[in-house]
Amino acid sequence: MATATAPDPDYEERVRASFERQAAMKSIGAELTLVRPGTVEIEMPYAAAFTQQHGFLHAGIISTAMDSACGYAAFTTMPAGAGVLTIEFKVNLLAPGRGERFLFRGSVTKPGRTIIVADGQAYAFGPHGEAKLIATMTGTMMTIQGRDGIEG
Amino acid sequence: MATATAPDPDYEERVRASFERQAAMKSIGAELTLVRPGTVEIEMPYAAAFTQQHGFLHAGIISTAMDSACGYAAFTTMPAGAGVLTIEFKVNLLAPGRGERFLFRGSVTKPGRTIIVADGQAYAFGPHGEAKLIATMTGTMMTIQGRDGIEG
Amino acid sequence: MATATAPDPDYEERVRASFERQAAMKSIGAELTLVRPGTVEIEMPYAAAFTQQHGFLHAGIISTAMDSACGYAAFTTMPAGAGVLTIEFKVNLLAPGRGERFLFRGSVTKPGRTIIVADGQAYAFGPHGEAKLIATMTGTMMTIQGRDGIEG
Amino acid sequence: MATATAPDPDYEERVRASFERQAAMKSIGAELTLVRPGTVEIEMPYAAAFTQQHGFLHAGIISTAMDSACGYAAFTTMPAGAGVLTIEFKVNLLAPGRGERFLFRGSVTKPGRTIIVADGQAYAFGPHGEAKLIATMTGTMMTIQGRDGIEG
Repeated sequence: MATATAPDPDYEERVRASFERQAAMKSIGAELTLVRPGTVEIEMPYAAAFTQQHGFLHAGIISTAMDSACGYAAFTTMPAGAGVLTIEFKVNLLAPGRGERFLFRGSVTKPGRTIIVADGQAYAFGPHGEAKLIATMTGTMMTIQGRDGIEG
Repeated sequence: MATATAPDPDYEERVRASFERQAAMKSIGAELTLVRPGTVEIEMPYAAAFTQQHGFLHAGIISTAMDSACGYAAFTTMPAGAGVLTIEFKVNLLAPGRGERFLFRGSVTKPGRTIIVADGQAYAFGPHGEAKLIATMTGTMMTIQGRDGIEG
Repeated sequence: MATATAPDPDYEERVRASFERQAAMKSIGAELTLVRPGTVEIEMPYAAAFTQQHGFLHAGIISTAMDSACGYAAFTTMPAGAGVLTIEFKVNLLAPGRGERFLFRGSVTKPGRTIIVADGQAYAFGPHGEAKLIATMTGTMMTIQGRDGIEG
Repeated sequence: MATATAPDPDYEERVRASFERQAAMKSIGAELTLVRPGTVEIEMPYAAAFTQQHGFLHAGIISTAMDSACGYAAFTTMPAGAGVLTIEFKVNLLAPGRGERFLFRGSVTKPGRTIIVADGQAYAFGPHGEAKLIATMTGTMMTIQGRDGIEG
């Protein structure tokens, strides 16, 4: 959302440091490609190792990347020292996870002190770069403060 | 659901064959441990390679296994030759994905010719075998018939 | 979605006729204010008779109007003679249902022959006409054809 | 959930007092029929005034009653002086809202100091008293403390 603001000037650094600690992102081949106040993008190439039975990217892997994008979008709006946890999310699969490359965007729809709502989109790119919306997410994120081991 | 029935006597074999083709399941270390009409269970050990930034199993990986469990629970109620696709799901994360081992159960709540609703639970097991409910899912699955490449 | 098309030239008439038969809309004081291919808007004044315990419009009533908006947005993309049913929806309540007037918009995010995904927004208007986003919805709708009693 | 406990001995009185202030419940003809720690039931007769276009109880009205049942189930687990707000919910419509009478049950799946997850079921009763599961809900509720006007 255009009006989201980052209260901590080091928001991008904090997002990147936390993303580096998400082993799951590295394992699925995902990279952080954009970090702005209220918006985060993650990209990954097609990975045969993470497909379902028809050879499409598994809906759960699409959700994994969208959850991280939405979570970090929320994280950009949090103060230094806070941690982010996902309370819940809902995903609609609009088209098969077929493509050469995928982009996952998370954006804050409703900032808040404790509860933050973010929406996500997943796009598949074909051989000529054409993009197709393949999934959407709505997620509810929570700011955690002062809990040991929950930072970032 | 106790009253779910499998119209195809080979339902278990079909579920197992399809699961084998889900590369994502092998990659995250998941195994199919129970296949009954209307219910499927999947288990996996804790995997540091699939964690989020605090060292817990990533919410998206929990969702990946629950989606497969719910999808195959729905698949047991489908006729031979059908394929199963996930339309949408919603996940609530109730506790961190911390544990030595995880079990994911999917059960059909509402069978149907085209649309099937399944509910899932994810449990974490501690060092003494104690189980904790860490997430729930409600998913909507669709029966696909007569579409090339969509079987299983 | 800008690219949604209405295959039936009488789509608006069909939406209006079906809306007239939704007794719930009349009971909560809702009116149909916009019908375009893929987008429908419904408005209603604040109604003390449909509040929750703090005097805000009840989350379920907000959902009722958003569900009708999303359902009819989907309906505009269906052929003549079809009926529309809601399979599921998810609602996030972003701010209290406080205001003088409310607008509920439903838009088709993913058209389809059988399954249609629509997204909704609910806005509250204050005394000076200022709008506030109070809720969002993602809903999955189904086209019903050839079933007695399910038209419109 | 069997293990939910009510920290405030006056929990039932507080639920009943808050329910009385929910004008929406009276308007749709709903009554509070069971209040236990972690579980609340609401019932209502079929109401032609709250139907959708095919004469079934509107999905949004089913959601309204399930949201109140889930919200009050959560409320039974809160301390005196707290208020309850719904953050989000998801509803699956499993069968048409057709019947002589309806029962809506909300139960706490995961208690918590701030965030409480509750699950709901809606049943329709036919002319001979036979029950049919027509919808399910998963909702996320929040405990509000020390905010003016938000009690109950």
